[in-house]
Amino acid sequence: MAIMTHDRSLAIDPEERPTVILAPHPQRAERIFRPETLATLRQRYRVVEFEGEADAGRLDAALPDALAIVGQPDLPGERLERAARLRAILNVEGNFFPNVDYPMAFARGVRVVGCGPAYAQAVAEYALGLAIDLARGISREDRAFRAGHEGWVSASTADSILLRSADVGLIGFGNLGRALLPLLAPFRPTLRVHDPWLPDSVLRELGLTPVTLDDLLRSSRFVFMLATVTPESQAMLDGPRLDLLMPGARLILVSRAAVADYDALLERVAAGRLLAAVDVWPEEPLAADHPARGLDGLVLSAHRAGGIPEAFLSIGDMVVDDLALIARGLPPVRMQAAAPELVGRYRNKPVR
Amino acid sequence: MAIMTHDRSLAIDPEERPTVILAPHPQRAERIFRPETLATLRQRYRVVEFEGEADAGRLDAALPDALAIVGQPDLPGERLERAARLRAILNVEGNFFPNVDYPMAFARGVRVVGCGPAYAQAVAEYALGLAIDLARGISREDRAFRAGHEGWVSASTADSILLRSADVGLIGFGNLGRALLPLLAPFRPTLRVHDPWLPDSVLRELGLTPVTLDDLLRSSRFVFMLATVTPESQAMLDGPRLDLLMPGARLILVSRAAVADYDALLERVAAGRLLAAVDVWPEEPLAADHPARGLDGLVLSAHRAGGIPEAFLSIGDMVVDDLALIARGLPPVRMQAAAPELVGRYRNKPVR
Amino acid sequence: MAIMTHDRSLAIDPEERPTVILAPHPQRAERIFRPETLATLRQRYRVVEFEGEADAGRLDAALPDALAIVGQPDLPGERLERAARLRAILNVEGNFFPNVDYPMAFARGVRVVGCGPAYAQAVAEYALGLAIDLARGISREDRAFRAGHEGWVSASTADSILLRSADVGLIGFGNLGRALLPLLAPFRPTLRVHDPWLPDSVLRELGLTPVTLDDLLRSSRFVFMLATVTPESQAMLDGPRLDLLMPGARLILVSRAAVADYDALLERVAAGRLLAAVDVWPEEPLAADHPARGLDGLVLSAHRAGGIPEAFLSIGDMVVDDLALIARGLPPVRMQAAAPELVGRYRNKPVR
Amino acid sequence: MAIMTHDRSLAIDPEERPTVILAPHPQRAERIFRPETLATLRQRYRVVEFEGEADAGRLDAALPDALAIVGQPDLPGERLERAARLRAILNVEGNFFPNVDYPMAFARGVRVVGCGPAYAQAVAEYALGLAIDLARGISREDRAFRAGHEGWVSASTADSILLRSADVGLIGFGNLGRALLPLLAPFRPTLRVHDPWLPDSVLRELGLTPVTLDDLLRSSRFVFMLATVTPESQAMLDGPRLDLLMPGARLILVSRAAVADYDALLERVAAGRLLAAVDVWPEEPLAADHPARGLDGLVLSAHRAGGIPEAFLSIGDMVVDDLALIARGLPPVRMQAAAPELVGRYRNKPVR
Repeated sequence: MAIMTHDRSLAIDPEERPTVILAPHPQRAERIFRPETLATLRQRYRVVEFEGEADAGRLDAALPDALAIVGQPDLPGERLERAARLRAILNVEGNFFPNVDYPMAFARGVRVVGCGPAYAQAVAEYALGLAIDLARGISREDRAFRAGHEGWVSASTADSILLRSADVGLIGFGNLGRALLPLLAPFRPTLRVHDPWLPDSVLRELGLTPVTLDDLLRSSRFVFMLATVTPESQAMLDGPRLDLLMPGARLILVSRAAVADYDALLERVAAGRLLAAVDVWPEEPLAADHPARGLDGLVLSAHRAGGIPEAFLSIGDMVVDDLALIARGLPPVRMQAAAPELVGRYRNKPVR
Repeated sequence: MAIMTHDRSLAIDPEERPTVILAPHPQRAERIFRPETLATLRQRYRVVEFEGEADAGRLDAALPDALAIVGQPDLPGERLERAARLRAILNVEGNFFPNVDYPMAFARGVRVVGCGPAYAQAVAEYALGLAIDLARGISREDRAFRAGHEGWVSASTADSILLRSADVGLIGFGNLGRALLPLLAPFRPTLRVHDPWLPDSVLRELGLTPVTLDDLLRSSRFVFMLATVTPESQAMLDGPRLDLLMPGARLILVSRAAVADYDALLERVAAGRLLAAVDVWPEEPLAADHPARGLDGLVLSAHRAGGIPEAFLSIGDMVVDDLALIARGLPPVRMQAAAPELVGRYRNKPVR
Repeated sequence: MAIMTHDRSLAIDPEERPTVILAPHPQRAERIFRPETLATLRQRYRVVEFEGEADAGRLDAALPDALAIVGQPDLPGERLERAARLRAILNVEGNFFPNVDYPMAFARGVRVVGCGPAYAQAVAEYALGLAIDLARGISREDRAFRAGHEGWVSASTADSILLRSADVGLIGFGNLGRALLPLLAPFRPTLRVHDPWLPDSVLRELGLTPVTLDDLLRSSRFVFMLATVTPESQAMLDGPRLDLLMPGARLILVSRAAVADYDALLERVAAGRLLAAVDVWPEEPLAADHPARGLDGLVLSAHRAGGIPEAFLSIGDMVVDDLALIARGLPPVRMQAAAPELVGRYRNKPVR
Repeated sequence: MAIMTHDRSLAIDPEERPTVILAPHPQRAERIFRPETLATLRQRYRVVEFEGEADAGRLDAALPDALAIVGQPDLPGERLERAARLRAILNVEGNFFPNVDYPMAFARGVRVVGCGPAYAQAVAEYALGLAIDLARGISREDRAFRAGHEGWVSASTADSILLRSADVGLIGFGNLGRALLPLLAPFRPTLRVHDPWLPDSVLRELGLTPVTLDDLLRSSRFVFMLATVTPESQAMLDGPRLDLLMPGARLILVSRAAVADYDALLERVAAGRLLAAVDVWPEEPLAADHPARGLDGLVLSAHRAGGIPEAFLSIGDMVVDDLALIARGLPPVRMQAAAPELVGRYRNKPVR
């Protein structure tokens, strides 16, 4: 990093405040910005704000002056061409939708960044909590205690296991894996990772063992499913793969539902073949009479891993920090650059 | 550590195998020894075994030859005097009872060691799991999901908080605190500790902030009660002290019930003043109609934190490792030496 | 990261091996590639190799088919236009020179990546070694010992200090800072960082304290100069700034000479005002009669921090790993993407 | 740890201040106590101080009232019998000499503690500095630079190696090993340890691989000699053992000279067979014409690793902290308890 010795604060001349378009829908501004952060944004920039779906006319009118767009409105090529001074698109929803002409954005040198990292710590802490719950039967025995048939001391710990020195598998090693890794480190587990988007050397340098998906499933007592959805990852955790898991394995599913075959998964949990904690579901909300609601070997969670107040508010902080850099002609560092090679591959649905 | 270049293995002459008394009651030998570990013990030593309460006659007869006693039988002065060759008493229950003439044991150079460390990792992992459960409402929302009124995504995360960068207080910093510290470290919390048996310097060297109990309660969002029971610590967490906690504080109680006033604690949980996870209770088992069983702000646990298979079996491993050192005239290193100054102070009851 | 369940290995059809241009000058292929790595490269791709300065004709002829260019030949716009299939330029020298039309490369979606990270670990380990040398007088007392006037035990340790709990300042926090941080962590120093290209939040999340350059100099006993050269950082460490350092401060200078005023620095070392370890010099090699060669308060190093065999060979490994990803249409992950905003700013000279 | 809720400070009644004997010789009080620490000591206790060798008469007169003895005066049985109220002997020299009737002290329940841990951090940091010096040729190339024949950039780094991922062996794993371990951890080395006083399980739990001495020497590129002297460890590093080292191995010798055969060691360094950093010597000071002074493959150090101001002053802090605990009837926690089994085995000479 180079060093500039001049004052670091943004010299703001009200006459020439850069224009920033704020169109966060389906995200809500008040959820991602603390009041003081939003005030800072409005003081530093001329903010053109949109509630709900962005009005086409106002948006088109604002584009020619815009330094940056905070949000994910429709940005086809003809619109991007109007945005002559545009330097960055800051996605605040978490997924990249196919409503932006990304190739043209990249060709025009427009930075496309996302807020995925904002949720990573919340998901990682939650995933660790789910893993310990499965290891020790915390929620199951809490239910038993309330029902009056709890088992005292070692009467209810026969299937309790330690995370220390355990065989742990991570399927996918992106933001979630990188946030989870330091939380697992003090347990000194044997960590196996499957992620075909990364060279083995990258995993080895982190002390991780790169393996095939099948080897990971065969050798791990704890399996964290952290992979996002691509055509290749659809239902990768199907019945035959789940049967590779050792009896009593603990599966933590916190990324996307489409990566697993839920009928096959729940059938095996019901049979006592494995224990699972599930935060994402094929249909959300889940049907009121869905049999999963009664499975004792399951920890049920309603897509709660990432969307907590601190995570949402960190998005606004990231936006303000990176806009300051962008306005100074520096690269953004807090939000995550969309990879031109990948931005078209994702199949995630927006989370409302 | 010095280095001996000769062979490390124990040269065993069947004629002169040292005598070891195995009287684990109320602990059970098969719970703390893996079959192969017990076999090793019997191969290396002449093991005089007792089931249940040790028979006085056989015990007295075995004492004169005994190198070590594995267990916690009654050992008044007159018995210790008979044990001319005794070098160590290895307590495998977890608490030091007042049924041993400890001063005489120390005066005769008999090592008195305990297995407390065997449970520390299990309790630490469990305590972390309880803390994340309280931070994120895992068991509470699992119950709601099963009852059909779960809240999706951010509808049920309004009170969810991160452990990262949180203010965390540890009351007592012994085996449990030392086992929990590395698990908390990657969350980079602000750690305040109250432990009057330790100089501030010891805590500061570990990056911890020593504070008074009241300051700890006032400033911590997560409070881990890890203190054992002494005359001074009885009911230290009473109503007035609990009222020092910030609204919505998370209290994890995993050491001993006697340190808290449960009526005051449950009353405040019922009022929504704080959230708590409780693993130890004034009466165990708890009355079937006890109101605690219905409190939504509580995570209920039936004294399950430490007594898991891996913890019990590690006791046997520690015993065999330390006996090998003791037989070689070296100090034991895995079990924990009883402090002459403290061994008389504890008020813990045996856990059956 | 998404998961692809198909075979991970590159299916190579000799008929259609992608073309890779290898023009490493001034770097040498045999220094950055292990023989087996180079063999892999030649087996996977049709490699058009250049020794020394790339011949313009052959280069122009190879460009239309090239998937990637490994090296830093002159690439003006007219050349890039000929490279219709070019996806990446992999710089293996370490600096980005102004001999490439970077804006056009970015506009055409060509990845521009550098090998800076390859040297970071070597520099970080070396910088730590220099810091401990300055803290404890290792090389100075080794010289005294050879000269026969060594001081035994505490006779030569009056100015020895610990790194543990010390006040440490990092000027610049890029690749070097990120590689040095984990090496310093176990010493639990108070870490202050000055880097105006990073928001304070990024530093705080790493447990670092962002400060102004002057505050850093005033409060740090150890100062690591890790900044690269920009117009703003030229000679930032001048006399007045050096006078902000506390007496006996230890300065480790391992990035670029242009950031410091050497006359002012050496004058203060000669006066015993501070101790310094210097690896980079305004003129390399340094004049044979340069007074710096006789300063006792200096650790002298001839630009040796980064260029070690393991570092050079890691470049080849990174190239092969990233080419495999690029050929599969995935983003490179081991080499470092050039930031369009910064690539024009650097003033570093190539190191031969 | 138990919790006492009463005030933690020592209530001092001038009439009944406990008596503490301060007889630090050959250590000097002003070197181990900061002025304010000594003032605290004198305010809390009635301090009977001795300069140089303790006067027998005054010492005998002070013994009956003494709560503790800070120092290592001669304490044969007849003297200990006079010390009816004695609770602790706090050795401030670093070695346990055979001038104390240790068995009687233990039998009378007198705590015997040492200050070994005070030097561990200083030695560990120094040992790491020596290892990096050997890995990168820091002092060697500093000498070359001063002599005018330095090699620039890669011209002098052909034998430079990284500590990262290196094979590292620790001979002995006591205070020094425990202090060095966290400093080595971020380099993610493969750590092999030989210490016959520790069960393999203790090393494995720390992520270390227990090995025989010969296997350690065969497989380690860096070898740290951290063992103290016992009859068994005398000259354990002899010629045949040194020949097990791989060519170019780096040996760091910072514990005791008696563990190595120096003729054999220096002969191999002279032959370029290995590189070594040596801080302890068979004769101190070393003969002015000793050939070691001219060896280029050696880093020479005059017993400087532990005796630095911060280390000495920490002894006084430890003494005051532990005396406060002892006066309250609690066990000391900062100084190290002498093991009855070991206190008679050491052969270390006092360091003046």
